[in-house]
Amino acid sequence: MHLPKGFRFAGVAGGIKTRVGARDVTLIVSDEPCVAAGVYTTNQIVAAPVVVSRSRTPSNTIRGIVVNSGNANACTGTRGHQDAVEMTRHAATAIDPQGKLTADQFVVMSTGIIGRFLPMEKIKVGISAAAGELAATEQAFLNACDGILTTDIARKTAERNFQLEGKDTHIVGMCKGAGMIGPKMATMLAIIISDAPLEPKQAQRLLQSAANKSFNCISVEGHMSTNDTLVMLASQPTEATPALQGESEQAFAKQLNEMSIELAKKIPDDGEGATHLLEIRIQGANTDADADAVARSVALSNLVKTAITGGDPNWGRIVSAAGYAGVPIRPDYTALKINGIPLFDRGEPLAFDAAKVSQSIKARKLTEIDLQVGLGPGVATHWTTDLNTEYVRFNSEYST
Amino acid sequence: MHLPKGFRFAGVAGGIKTRVGARDVTLIVSDEPCVAAGVYTTNQIVAAPVVVSRSRTPSNTIRGIVVNSGNANACTGTRGHQDAVEMTRHAATAIDPQGKLTADQFVVMSTGIIGRFLPMEKIKVGISAAAGELAATEQAFLNACDGILTTDIARKTAERNFQLEGKDTHIVGMCKGAGMIGPKMATMLAIIISDAPLEPKQAQRLLQSAANKSFNCISVEGHMSTNDTLVMLASQPTEATPALQGESEQAFAKQLNEMSIELAKKIPDDGEGATHLLEIRIQGANTDADADAVARSVALSNLVKTAITGGDPNWGRIVSAAGYAGVPIRPDYTALKINGIPLFDRGEPLAFDAAKVSQSIKARKLTEIDLQVGLGPGVATHWTTDLNTEYVRFNSEYST
Repeated sequence: MHLPKGFRFAGVAGGIKTRVGARDVTLIVSDEPCVAAGVYTTNQIVAAPVVVSRSRTPSNTIRGIVVNSGNANACTGTRGHQDAVEMTRHAATAIDPQGKLTADQFVVMSTGIIGRFLPMEKIKVGISAAAGELAATEQAFLNACDGILTTDIARKTAERNFQLEGKDTHIVGMCKGAGMIGPKMATMLAIIISDAPLEPKQAQRLLQSAANKSFNCISVEGHMSTNDTLVMLASQPTEATPALQGESEQAFAKQLNEMSIELAKKIPDDGEGATHLLEIRIQGANTDADADAVARSVALSNLVKTAITGGDPNWGRIVSAAGYAGVPIRPDYTALKINGIPLFDRGEPLAFDAAKVSQSIKARKLTEIDLQVGLGPGVATHWTTDLNTEYVRFNSEYST
Repeated sequence: MHLPKGFRFAGVAGGIKTRVGARDVTLIVSDEPCVAAGVYTTNQIVAAPVVVSRSRTPSNTIRGIVVNSGNANACTGTRGHQDAVEMTRHAATAIDPQGKLTADQFVVMSTGIIGRFLPMEKIKVGISAAAGELAATEQAFLNACDGILTTDIARKTAERNFQLEGKDTHIVGMCKGAGMIGPKMATMLAIIISDAPLEPKQAQRLLQSAANKSFNCISVEGHMSTNDTLVMLASQPTEATPALQGESEQAFAKQLNEMSIELAKKIPDDGEGATHLLEIRIQGANTDADADAVARSVALSNLVKTAITGGDPNWGRIVSAAGYAGVPIRPDYTALKINGIPLFDRGEPLAFDAAKVSQSIKARKLTEIDLQVGLGPGVATHWTTDLNTEYVRFNSEYST
């Protein structure tokens, strides 16, 4: 893989996770002060690392990101805040013992079991070890990816390489699942790094826009964590390489959006116990926001999710979930396809071969749901998991 | 039990349900034109019986209600509409062969399997048979209750008897569950009958108000059906017994509200496979509407539901569900009790005996969740089921 120029990565085993040798401290460092943007949970109950990171982005003086997994810092009180700040202070010191870096040049994330304070001694030893291993190699990048995972089955990365204004440009990303963390709460973390030159406000705008079509369109259980964080680091514009503009910005945004979708989809695809990934594509709504509301209503319906688990082409559950989404739809122009097979059109069920549709659902992991809800221009796509007994077992029996 | 004066009931086996002898046609008739009010699904996809009944309430010329179970009329097209109207026409004719009653003096409901048209011949035979069995007896009332059930395990009734302006006054109610109907869609039906004298608009206002604190506060899976219907019949005011006013109306409303809550709670209590009934009481929100939004967010969280299934006093899942409800809360004044035991106060977790709380959850079906989200006057209570493997099996494996 091709890494963005000017960044180094490390992921080490700090002994926070119980499994021996599991990486649980990740450090990502920019060789020079870089541009950072962040999109954070909109939950009103916000964990300390989100409070700290949110206060430091957007920015053009950031030097890196420090993350620990295995133990979340989900506290909202004084100790949680002190621990989050201390992680960034220790990262600054570990990277530059001469003390030229400051704590506020780092953003911070924590994920894992909640209900206990962070094991700060282990984390600090881990950060120091990670600082010693920083490298601009693929292996170092993959180690960093592993260091943010919790219950994820698979490592989640994506990359894009393209030419922009005659220069090789790179975007890489990593994320971890929003699946439940035994025994407590879900968290989604994602990090995107690029060597494209961006202004802070521009980076923030582009990241928010990408998130709205990707990380904000996935759900496993629809439960928004207090720790969800997406941070992007990008290169500082210079006189020689000014910030992207016009068509160059659009070209970058396209790559960023597509990579964000690729990355975000890996989360429900790796949902705990999920046997299906549902791709729910809405068209014909009055606006994109309306389409988004319909997609969300379908994606969050346990009846839709269990129907897919059972391989049932249940148009009634899908269409009626659109009907209570709280935004206007046109029942007389409602149409539905599952895996490309028409089931419903102009507000009426069609004759279809239920066994054939069922077979198409059972034959593969991806189920494609195409729902038209009117004649408007609004479109949206959401991704979610099915709902099966394995998921329920995982999320109810963790404490026994 | 004490039935309201002036109403007769019947429930017969019309052969619509596959189980031989299962009652599936219900008829409720007022001896004189009565007052009727209705509260219907707000789903934009609306089934034919809802369209027909909604057009006929509120009213003071209604003579009865005709219901079939075993086969829903979930159609939105011409045939569905014709069938719904035909049910009311046949009820009018069966009750008064001299033809003095008209179809539009009846409201209509259908529930059961969707995806096929109503077996109208069976239904008409059933309506005629029911007309012949109409009686003002407890047995006839209970037969009528049975005739609206689908997958419900238990018959669901409630009653209130009280003095109003020196007269014996009665309210009786019946409902059927919103649990899934194999193999398709959920429907909640409820019927309330009273011999209290009410004007149509007054009946509508009182019924809507009762529904807002009862039937609109329950969920099994949060999926709103296209057929959900609540209808109330009440006596016609006369010169001798004018419509209730002032304190009398308030006394009636209190009885109606409490009975509606008693009736509505039976639905999640009888949820398919549910091992817990969650009572979620919110206080301290800015308004009742805000409290309602928080209660709904907690009630619809699969993570909260699965935690209760597992007997885990997971304050993190509950508090964070309040945090993303979309209405303002005060994290610093957030407090939580489960089964009366404080777990969280002023935004911070308390030390508590997790095993003891877990034991209190596992020991009984009802789990009481008391969540304070600020210092405002807004309160709300919702009821829902837990989420366990049995529910998922029921809702995913029905078609196999």
